Amino acid sequence: MAWEVFSIIGTIAFALSGAIVAMEEEYDLFGVYLLGVVTAFGGGAIRNLLIGLPVTTLWSQEMMFQIALAAITLFFLVPQRFIKHWNRWGNLFDAIGLAAFAVQGAMYAVKLELPISAVIVAAVLTGSGGGIVRDLLARRKPTVLRDEIYAMWAAGAGLIIGLQFLTGDLFLYMIFICVMTLRILSYMRGWQLPRKKLLVK
Amino acid sequence: MAWEVFSIIGTIAFALSGAIVAMEEEYDLFGVYLLGVVTAFGGGAIRNLLIGLPVTTLWSQEMMFQIALAAITLFFLVPQRFIKHWNRWGNLFDAIGLAAFAVQGAMYAVKLELPISAVIVAAVLTGSGGGIVRDLLARRKPTVLRDEIYAMWAAGAGLIIGLQFLTGDLFLYMIFICVMTLRILSYMRGWQLPRKKLLVK
Amino acid sequence: MAWEVFSIIGTIAFALSGAIVAMEEEYDLFGVYLLGVVTAFGGGAIRNLLIGLPVTTLWSQEMMFQIALAAITLFFLVPQRFIKHWNRWGNLFDAIGLAAFAVQGAMYAVKLELPISAVIVAAVLTGSGGGIVRDLLARRKPTVLRDEIYAMWAAGAGLIIGLQFLTGDLFLYMIFICVMTLRILSYMRGWQLPRKKLLVK
Repeated sequence: MAWEVFSIIGTIAFALSGAIVAMEEEYDLFGVYLLGVVTAFGGGAIRNLLIGLPVTTLWSQEMMFQIALAAITLFFLVPQRFIKHWNRWGNLFDAIGLAAFAVQGAMYAVKLELPISAVIVAAVLTGSGGGIVRDLLARRKPTVLRDEIYAMWAAGAGLIIGLQFLTGDLFLYMIFICVMTLRILSYMRGWQLPRKKLLVK
Repeated sequence: MAWEVFSIIGTIAFALSGAIVAMEEEYDLFGVYLLGVVTAFGGGAIRNLLIGLPVTTLWSQEMMFQIALAAITLFFLVPQRFIKHWNRWGNLFDAIGLAAFAVQGAMYAVKLELPISAVIVAAVLTGSGGGIVRDLLARRKPTVLRDEIYAMWAAGAGLIIGLQFLTGDLFLYMIFICVMTLRILSYMRGWQLPRKKLLVK
Repeated sequence: MAWEVFSIIGTIAFALSGAIVAMEEEYDLFGVYLLGVVTAFGGGAIRNLLIGLPVTTLWSQEMMFQIALAAITLFFLVPQRFIKHWNRWGNLFDAIGLAAFAVQGAMYAVKLELPISAVIVAAVLTGSGGGIVRDLLARRKPTVLRDEIYAMWAAGAGLIIGLQFLTGDLFLYMIFICVMTLRILSYMRGWQLPRKKLLVK
């Protein structure tokens, strides 16, 4: 039940992040819907492909689709001055989505008894794959690969869940809260992963 | 029979649009073939993935492949001054391809008894998915997301076919003609979808 | 046995080429791992998708994953002045990877008794698909489509293997050596495929 609420919040946050990027790039209404839908559902679709779940499970999420489309439509219609307020909430909701999808993605791979590398990849793709496709379609460098720590927290969730030292709902809720908190802290404090600059020839 | 002719026209138009983009980007002969083939067959491949048809049906289209490769080769060899004439015909042929592939893509999803959201996505991907991948490989913003109305007509075809109020060949031909006509009008009159500019922070 | 050694060399070369591109783009540590892994394993994954092998065979390559991750980690840690020496070896190792993966990819398609177009596509994707995805994620024009001849040698291997005039290990080793040699010569002598510039409207 709680996971469903987190998924709805995350789906809306992801769909709106896609819609916002499309608007910033001056894409038309079709582009706004497309980037919104791809951001919300693309990560899960790629995960299903890679871990061997039928991709068609997409189409059993009719309600989630409708929620995403409604959110995008509403967002397209509201005046610009309301959008400013979204940014503040958007990052919180996005962190909820990242954490919920990472945990759920990892659990899919665990149920299929895949090795730990697959569990980590499933967590990362479900949490951040949609955002990467969104940025590609907007011809941007994926923010996930360069800004404040994001997907690494999903990878961490995948690792801990994949090790299966602990299981059970309480454990998953704890991981959810950790990922969400770490992501929010990363954003607020500007935490970044190390990088190493190479001189381009 | 008629559909097969439309498919051949569409495949040639899509393959050449890929080849043209590759040449504009100064890609080499391999790039010209790759973008041509991806534009002609990429949309159908992604649709198959998402609606659960075997992707390997690609390889039963041997004749279409050969037609596409022959068209690209010919186009690469003819002198530049003939290419000018192509533009005029190219948009007509492209509209035939968009309309034929949208109708065919939607029908694939209908036969699999998928929900209406899947029928719309299948129509859009079959009609415009190849063009999106083409633009990504050329590092361009997908024209489908920003120029004159294109994929929205495919989405409309998907919606009408998916509602299944009417069926039958005559009905499908009518949709085909509508999509083609609307696309040509969009191009000639510069019809665009509404857009909403956000101030980039 | 020998093929396994070539695969390991190729996997390391591809993983490091992804890591280098990520560093050049100033991606963070996560981006370095992601581009490394995608370059090493992405081509094979897309090939599996298109020729109908289960994508999940990815997860049986646990050892290859670990080798790739270890190579990327080491590369991230060594001082910059050692990296200069890599470039010299990098192109040799990359050519070994291209040749080995092209042969292996083609053989997968042959074993599935797919038509020759599928064998060529399988060879090209296995040899150069990872590099294309790498460049997309780095928002670069794919080097494969514009620089010295690369994927065309893989296509040639696919064509010759797909014709099945000859079979057997010795034959495959000869193709391997040809592709590797031709790629190295292409790089050293700057061999390029013909291209045809179109005037952008």
